[in-house]
Amino acid sequence: MIKVTLPDGSIKEFEKGTTPMDVAQSISAGLARNVISAKFNDKIIETATPLTTNGSLTLYTWNDEEGKKAFWHSTSHVMAQAIEELYPGAKLTIGPAIENGFYYDVDFGEHKISENDFGKIETKMLEIARGKHDFKMREVSKADALDYYKKQNNPFKVELIENLEDGTITFCDHDTFTDLCRGGHIPNTGIIKAVKLMSAAGAYWRGDEKNPQLTRIYGTSFPKQKELKEYLELLEEAKKRDHRKLGRELELFTFSQKVGQGLPLWLPKGAALRERLENFLKKAQKGAGYEMVVSPHIGQKELYVTSGHYAKYGEDSFQPIKTPNEGEEFLLKPMNCPHHCEIYNATSWSYRDLPKRFAEFGTVYRYEQSGELHGLTRVRGFTQDDAHIFCTPDQLDDEFKKVIDLTLYVFDSLGFENFTAQVSLRDPENKQKYIGSDDVWDKAENAIIAAAKEKGLNYVVETGEAAFYGPKLDFMVKDALGRNWQLGTIQVDYNLPERFDLTYKGSDNESHRPVMIHRAPFGSMERFVAILLEHTGGNFPLWLMPEQAIILSLSEKYEKYSQKVLTLMENHEIRARIDNRNETIGKKIREAEVNKFPYMLIVGEQEANDGTVSVRKRGEGDIGTMPVEAFAEIINNEIKKTLKAFEV
Amino acid sequence: MIKVTLPDGSIKEFEKGTTPMDVAQSISAGLARNVISAKFNDKIIETATPLTTNGSLTLYTWNDEEGKKAFWHSTSHVMAQAIEELYPGAKLTIGPAIENGFYYDVDFGEHKISENDFGKIETKMLEIARGKHDFKMREVSKADALDYYKKQNNPFKVELIENLEDGTITFCDHDTFTDLCRGGHIPNTGIIKAVKLMSAAGAYWRGDEKNPQLTRIYGTSFPKQKELKEYLELLEEAKKRDHRKLGRELELFTFSQKVGQGLPLWLPKGAALRERLENFLKKAQKGAGYEMVVSPHIGQKELYVTSGHYAKYGEDSFQPIKTPNEGEEFLLKPMNCPHHCEIYNATSWSYRDLPKRFAEFGTVYRYEQSGELHGLTRVRGFTQDDAHIFCTPDQLDDEFKKVIDLTLYVFDSLGFENFTAQVSLRDPENKQKYIGSDDVWDKAENAIIAAAKEKGLNYVVETGEAAFYGPKLDFMVKDALGRNWQLGTIQVDYNLPERFDLTYKGSDNESHRPVMIHRAPFGSMERFVAILLEHTGGNFPLWLMPEQAIILSLSEKYEKYSQKVLTLMENHEIRARIDNRNETIGKKIREAEVNKFPYMLIVGEQEANDGTVSVRKRGEGDIGTMPVEAFAEIINNEIKKTLKAFEV
Repeated sequence: MIKVTLPDGSIKEFEKGTTPMDVAQSISAGLARNVISAKFNDKIIETATPLTTNGSLTLYTWNDEEGKKAFWHSTSHVMAQAIEELYPGAKLTIGPAIENGFYYDVDFGEHKISENDFGKIETKMLEIARGKHDFKMREVSKADALDYYKKQNNPFKVELIENLEDGTITFCDHDTFTDLCRGGHIPNTGIIKAVKLMSAAGAYWRGDEKNPQLTRIYGTSFPKQKELKEYLELLEEAKKRDHRKLGRELELFTFSQKVGQGLPLWLPKGAALRERLENFLKKAQKGAGYEMVVSPHIGQKELYVTSGHYAKYGEDSFQPIKTPNEGEEFLLKPMNCPHHCEIYNATSWSYRDLPKRFAEFGTVYRYEQSGELHGLTRVRGFTQDDAHIFCTPDQLDDEFKKVIDLTLYVFDSLGFENFTAQVSLRDPENKQKYIGSDDVWDKAENAIIAAAKEKGLNYVVETGEAAFYGPKLDFMVKDALGRNWQLGTIQVDYNLPERFDLTYKGSDNESHRPVMIHRAPFGSMERFVAILLEHTGGNFPLWLMPEQAIILSLSEKYEKYSQKVLTLMENHEIRARIDNRNETIGKKIREAEVNKFPYMLIVGEQEANDGTVSVRKRGEGDIGTMPVEAFAEIINNEIKKTLKAFEV
Repeated sequence: MIKVTLPDGSIKEFEKGTTPMDVAQSISAGLARNVISAKFNDKIIETATPLTTNGSLTLYTWNDEEGKKAFWHSTSHVMAQAIEELYPGAKLTIGPAIENGFYYDVDFGEHKISENDFGKIETKMLEIARGKHDFKMREVSKADALDYYKKQNNPFKVELIENLEDGTITFCDHDTFTDLCRGGHIPNTGIIKAVKLMSAAGAYWRGDEKNPQLTRIYGTSFPKQKELKEYLELLEEAKKRDHRKLGRELELFTFSQKVGQGLPLWLPKGAALRERLENFLKKAQKGAGYEMVVSPHIGQKELYVTSGHYAKYGEDSFQPIKTPNEGEEFLLKPMNCPHHCEIYNATSWSYRDLPKRFAEFGTVYRYEQSGELHGLTRVRGFTQDDAHIFCTPDQLDDEFKKVIDLTLYVFDSLGFENFTAQVSLRDPENKQKYIGSDDVWDKAENAIIAAAKEKGLNYVVETGEAAFYGPKLDFMVKDALGRNWQLGTIQVDYNLPERFDLTYKGSDNESHRPVMIHRAPFGSMERFVAILLEHTGGNFPLWLMPEQAIILSLSEKYEKYSQKVLTLMENHEIRARIDNRNETIGKKIREAEVNKFPYMLIVGEQEANDGTVSVRKRGEGDIGTMPVEAFAEIINNEIKKTLKAFEV
C-alpha cells in the first residue's frame, strides 16, 4: 500500500501501482471523466502512470493551466503523426506546448509547406484523434533510442538523445506513432475534438542562425468545437484591438527605422493623450503631497555601479557612452532611482521633513533584442510615472496604504474594474539572498499584507518572489478580453538607502537610515497606453478622448454656425472638431462612429435658427436636440462621474 | 598729401605724416581730448602713428570697444612695469586686453604673489600713470629683439620672437619700460586714473600643462575713479545675482558629482518653476496652432549621419552607444530636428495641411569640456523649448512674423524690456558655402528683414553670419545689470528638408519641398532660468514666483486661522505657505524679504476676529488690512497685468 496526499491535505491509502485515474475514480466519476493530467511529487505524469511510492498527487482537468499544457503538448504529437503520414521523410525535432497552443519544428526537406496545407493536416489530425488512441510512455535505453532515430535518418533527435543520460530517456507511443518525449500527456487522442493550425514560420534548429532552418507550425486545440470558435472570435477581436493597429489608425504614435526600433515617436494626438494622463496623475500626486523633480537621462557609470544597476543591466544593455577626453563614461539611465537618491542627498533632512515624495515622468532606456520588441509594450525607451518615497520605518505602513489608494484611484478613473494583486515576500529558507535585517523585513512584509487586506484587494501571496532589496506588491489588470496585464508596482527598498548612504536626523538627534518606496501606478506611459488601447479598443473614458465630439453640418451652408458651436465647446474645454465636408449626413455619422467620437452634434437649418445641436451618442444613437450649453453640461457631468477628484 | 576717408564717408586731405590725433584736432578740440586709439585700413594703430598713404581712418574714444581695448592693453604695460620694478627678476610673457580688463602672465620666479600684494602693485601703477608717459612704438630687427630679451634672461619673449618674421617686430616704450608688442595703445599713461587688480591664478605657458606654470594677474582700469567704483558695485551686485548662488539659496537645482558634471538635478521648487514656464509657453503655442510631440533622447547613428549632425558634433561629443549585439549604434541626440523630420515623414501631407508646427520640450545632450561648464548656462544636458515649423515657401513670410510675435510675447511676459536682434545673412561673395538656390535665399532673407522691420525690432544685419542651411534671427536681451545674453533664435532651414526628403503635395498635385523653421524663444530651460535669475535676482514676475505669499502669524495661537487663510489662498490658486514659528514678527518679516516673498500676510488677534490679513508688499511695506478675498483680487490683478493672454 502507498499513502497519497491530496491537495486538500487529506491522505488516502491505495495499492502500489494505482494510477492517478484510479485515484480520480475513487473520488468521483465526474472527476474521472474530466481528469487529463497529473502531478506526483512535483513531476508531471500521465493519468495512467502507476504510483509506486508515498507522495503528493494533484489531478488536472482542462480548467487547469497544467491540464491545458498536457492537452496541447499531446496535440503536437498528433500533428507530428499527421505530418509524418502526409509528408514522408519530414524530420521532426521538438514540439512543446506554449501559451494558447503548441508548435512543432519540422524539417520538411523538399516539401514546401504553407497555410494552404493546413486544412489537409487538420483533417488528418482529427481523423487520428477520433481513433481514441492511448498515449503510452515507455523507457528506452540510449542505444535503442539512438538506433531508432538513426534508422529514421533524423539527426535532430539523435543530437537531442546524445545529450541525455541513459536511464532517463522515454518514448511516447500512440497509434502507429512514436516520439522521444519526457511525458505530460492526456489519456488518449479522443479528447481532442477541435484543432486549428494558426501559422507557419521559419525557425533555426536550437535558435541558432548557423543551424539549418526548420518550419515551425503553430496550432491550438480544444476539447469542444465551441471553445475553438470562441477562441478564434477572441483572437479576431484582439486583432482589432491590437494597440499597434489602433495607434496607427488613431494617429497616436509611430516608429521610424531611421530613429531606431523600439523607440516610439508620439504624434500630436498621442502626445496630447499622454499629457492628459500625466496631468491627471500629477494632479492626484500633488494632492497626495508628491513633489516633481527633473533629472537627466544619463549618469556617470559610477552612479550605476554604486546603485548596483550596472551589475544588473550593464553587459546586456546599452553600452557606456565615452567622451572625447577626461576619461568619463556615462550610461543611459535604466532607472530613475539613483538620480532621486542624489536629489535626496542634496539636502540634510530631519525626521520632521519626512516623508519626501519625489515624482518624475522619467524616461529610461533598456536594451531589448530586436526580436522581443512589440509595439509600445516592449520598447527600448519608455517613460515611467516614477516616484520614490523616502520615509522613516514607522511611516512605511501608512505610506504604503496611501500608495495603494492612489493606484486604485488611477485604475478606477480609467475603467479597469478587474484587477488582482500579488504580494511578493522573501524566501524564509534563503534569507542570505536578501539585504536587510529580519526585523525590517518582517515589519515591511506584515505592513504590505495588512495594507492589502485593509484595502480589500484580491491578492495572492508569493513566497520567494520578493526582489533582493525588499518585498513588493504588483497589480495585474484583466482587460475587456479577459487577458491579464501587469501594471503598477509598489516596492519597498532597503538596499539603495544603504548604497547611497541616505540619512535623516531622528528625534533622538542621531543619524538614521530612511526606507524607500518605489512606485509607478501606470508602470510606464508606453505600456499603459498600449493596455488602455487594447482594453478599450480606443473608446477611452470620455475625459481622456483625444476628441470628445464632432460637429456634423448638414451642408456647407452651416459652416459659420458650426464654427460658433466649436467656439462654445472650446469655452467649455470640450475637445471637438467640425466635419464640414460635402458628404451625406449618413456617411459622416458612420465615419464618426468608426473614428470613435463619443458624441456627434448635427447642425442644420433648425439648429442654427434655435441655437441648438442634435446630439447622437456613440452606440446609443439620438439623445435629443438641445441648446449647446445643455450639451456641455451633459458631457461635463459624464466626465465628473468617471473622473472624481482624488481624496487623500 | 594723402586722402583720409572718415567713417561718415567724407574724404579729407592731409599732409603725409599726419597722425590720427592731428586728424581729431582738425575735427574738434573735444574729439582730440577724448580720442585714445585709432584704426587705419583695418589695422589698429596709435594716435601718434604717422599716416603715410591714402586710407580709411576710424578714431576711438573710451566709449568704443576698441578704445577700451587699447586702454586696458596699455594698462597691462603699466602693470608689467610696476611688477618689474617691485619684483626684480620676474619674467614677463604676454599681457592682452580681455573683456572688462586685462591680464599679464608672469613668471615670478622665487617670489610668491597673492592678493595681499595687489595694493602695493596698484600704488606703483598709479604712480607710473601719473607720470603721463607717452606710449611709443618702434620697429626692431629680430636680432636686436632677441638680443634684448636674452640679456634679460627671458626665454618666453625669446620664444615669441623666434616665431615672428624679421621686419614685423615692434617694441613699445613708455617711461623706462619696454615691451615686445604689436601695438594698440592709448596716447599716454596719464589717462589711466583708476586701477584695480582683481585676482591671481595659475596659468600654463601657452596653455599647455607640460609647460612651466606662470601667475596670471587679472586687472581692470578706468579713466575716472567713479567709473571704477560703479564697476565694482556692479560686480558685487552680479555676484549676489549669480544664478548658481541664487539657485542654491532658493532650492531650485543642484549638481551631483556622482550623476556627473554639467547635468543639473532640478529640485522640487526648480522643477515647479520650470513647469510653470513650460505651461506658459505651451498655452501660448496651443493658441498659435502648435502641436506637441514626444521623441526619444537617442537615435541611430545613421539618423545623425543623414542630418549632418554627426559630421558636426560626432567626434567632439558624447560617443556612440554600442549594443551587445546586432551591431546597432545610437547617439544621444544633440538636436531634436531629425526626430521631428521623421515625425513629419510618418504622414503624407498636402499643401492644405501646412503649416505643421511640431513642438517639444526636448532634452538634448552635448559634450562640453569640464572646464567650460558653468552653472545652468553651460551644461551637458539641456531642454530646448523647441519647435519646427514645416511650411510652403509662400507661408514662410507669415510664419516668421508669427514666431517673432510669440517671442516678443515671451520676453514681455517675463519682464525683459531691452532686447536687440541680429539678422544673419549669407555672404554674397561665397554663395557656394550655402545650400539652396539664390532665389529661395533672397526670398527668405527679404522675408526676415521685412518681418524685423514690420515688428519694429531694434536689429542689426550681419552679412556672412547665416548658418550654411539658412538665414536666421537671434535675440539678445540686456539684463538688469546691463549685461547682454543671447536668448531665443529663429532659423530658416533649406537643408534638412533635402536631407530627409520631406515633401508635400502642392495644389498642382506635384510633390514639393517644404521649408523648415527652427525656433526656441527661451533657447533652453536651463539657460533661460539662469538668465532670469540673474536678471531678476530671484524676484521673478509674480505669476512665476515659487511662492507668492507667506502667512506670518503673530504667535502660534493663530495657527488655525493661518491654516484657514492658506486654504483660501489655495482655492484662489495662490501659492503660499505659513511661517508659524515662535519668532518675533520683525524677524519673520526680515527673513521673508530675504527669501523674496512678494507678499507677507500678517495675522493676529484682530485679523482672526475680522477674517482679514494685514498685507506687506516686498519693497513697499504695509499696504493695509483687508479681507482675504480682497487680497486675492490684488494678487490676481497684478498677475493679469504682467501675464496677458497671447493674441494670435
